[in-house]
Amino acid sequence: MRTCVIGGGGFIGKYLVKLLLASGRDVLVLGRRSERPLDLSTNAYYKPCDYADKNNLRKCLVDCDEIVDLAYATVPQTSFENPIFDLQANLPPSVALLEVANELNNLRCLIVTSSGGTVYGLSQVLPITEECATQPISPYGITKLAIERYALMFHLLSDLPVIIVRPSNAFGLGQKPFTGQGFIATAMGKVLKNEPVTIFGENGTIRDYVHVKDIALGILCAMDRGEAGEIYNIGSGIGRSNRDVLEEMRPIVEGSGFSIRSNNAQPRGFDVPTNVLSYEKLLKHANWQPEVSFDTGICEMWEGMLSNFKS
Amino acid sequence: MRTCVIGGGGFIGKYLVKLLLASGRDVLVLGRRSERPLDLSTNAYYKPCDYADKNNLRKCLVDCDEIVDLAYATVPQTSFENPIFDLQANLPPSVALLEVANELNNLRCLIVTSSGGTVYGLSQVLPITEECATQPISPYGITKLAIERYALMFHLLSDLPVIIVRPSNAFGLGQKPFTGQGFIATAMGKVLKNEPVTIFGENGTIRDYVHVKDIALGILCAMDRGEAGEIYNIGSGIGRSNRDVLEEMRPIVEGSGFSIRSNNAQPRGFDVPTNVLSYEKLLKHANWQPEVSFDTGICEMWEGMLSNFKS
Repeated sequence: MRTCVIGGGGFIGKYLVKLLLASGRDVLVLGRRSERPLDLSTNAYYKPCDYADKNNLRKCLVDCDEIVDLAYATVPQTSFENPIFDLQANLPPSVALLEVANELNNLRCLIVTSSGGTVYGLSQVLPITEECATQPISPYGITKLAIERYALMFHLLSDLPVIIVRPSNAFGLGQKPFTGQGFIATAMGKVLKNEPVTIFGENGTIRDYVHVKDIALGILCAMDRGEAGEIYNIGSGIGRSNRDVLEEMRPIVEGSGFSIRSNNAQPRGFDVPTNVLSYEKLLKHANWQPEVSFDTGICEMWEGMLSNFKS
Repeated sequence: MRTCVIGGGGFIGKYLVKLLLASGRDVLVLGRRSERPLDLSTNAYYKPCDYADKNNLRKCLVDCDEIVDLAYATVPQTSFENPIFDLQANLPPSVALLEVANELNNLRCLIVTSSGGTVYGLSQVLPITEECATQPISPYGITKLAIERYALMFHLLSDLPVIIVRPSNAFGLGQKPFTGQGFIATAMGKVLKNEPVTIFGENGTIRDYVHVKDIALGILCAMDRGEAGEIYNIGSGIGRSNRDVLEEMRPIVEGSGFSIRSNNAQPRGFDVPTNVLSYEKLLKHANWQPEVSFDTGICEMWEGMLSNFKS
């Protein structure tokens, strides 16, 4: 089985590639950069590819049995600065991928990675199930949702075996601070620099943090046992406010001689106050549930960042 | 009151412009073509404008109190041929319009024209209300829905006074045959050419036909009495199959000495079988209901096409 992971050199991609290799697959990683990503499993093939170009993409995917698309040119926060860039950078390559995948003869699965944190918007029901209304309030969430719709259209009209996953907030060892997403990594980065962590509103937003290993495993389970044309949340079912996260980090960072300071800013209109996902459907269809505890995840992450900081 | 109608030289636009003028407004019509559209009310100003260019758009809109956007570069059927063209031609100008409108100081209303015939997709409930799930299965429906989301995002984050209308299938005097949309006009065109009308499936699709005058009036009612941030269907609540339409046309065209022939083709996967909209919300919020009967509408339309055909 040959599996292509587009954008597989990123945070979630590197974890997923390990699992795919461990399951016995041949793995081809496509990335925009000419250099092979650091820390990418040595047994994975890496190929630089401008995947917005259909001809390039067609050549790279010709022998693939499975495709996972993890590439995205924007993050939720920066998408507000330039919604037109967000759509122009993300929609055409995503639709081109569906068109090219639709030409392949033996494709068994195409995983479209959506965003459980943004496509639902302001939800009335918690935890959010896949049947809940999708009312995104960020350009990023709007384009992610549009890509889901294109994927489901190709499934309905051409039987393209798409499976859509909606992960909530990933965290874990290897996440970079200060990228505009990843509150935990950024908070740890601030602590290491002895700067206060900014919390928007009294306790900040409530988010569903899932360890990156579990997200990678959720994608693999969806590939192996999920159903084509279905949408799966990958979440923990547990909500933590920014304040909760800092309190759980406190003993760990203080044990290393650091301290946590925070300051408060006005809540931002574009932040959904609460986002917590139900994972009942992925449990039922594919027997997935999160395994890494929050505490284990943040300990390991802090140790990783601390040792980078010291070196 | 100065009202700008973007794409106001089209089928719905010309009817709307008449109503806007009759209500005492100054009307500016923007269109892509350098020549003034035929039959556009003489009291409306016409200005050619490449409205994909933000600077052009800004200059045209600077003194406007109201904006109605009726422009679109594609129709549902042709959007399948090139989904990337559909999104590239429609999304950037629509987002640019929201950005420019958001800079205006005195805007009282921006009407975003969506598509009641495509954004819902395969609906479980009939007639379809605005609260029903939106699961478009055409590129056209996907981009129309994305534009709704952008508009609601600007409303939520910046109080932009957007109102979204979702008209069902327009028909009436002046609709052109053979454009890829407008079953009634195309069927009449076929009859005049003595060609058979193609019906996909046994009785064809069931659609909600609303007279173009009523759609224009629905837009005006939404502008005058609708609420910002709301979505309004503009439909009749009545479904007619292609076969029903031909039967209702039969006595009219036979009275003029023509005859209706039809042939059947396989149903097309991309056609939603049934689309009928509830107009309860626009009735409740803005006291709108359809006024022109189907029979009156098709008589008038046939007479118009017949007299063009003879001349």
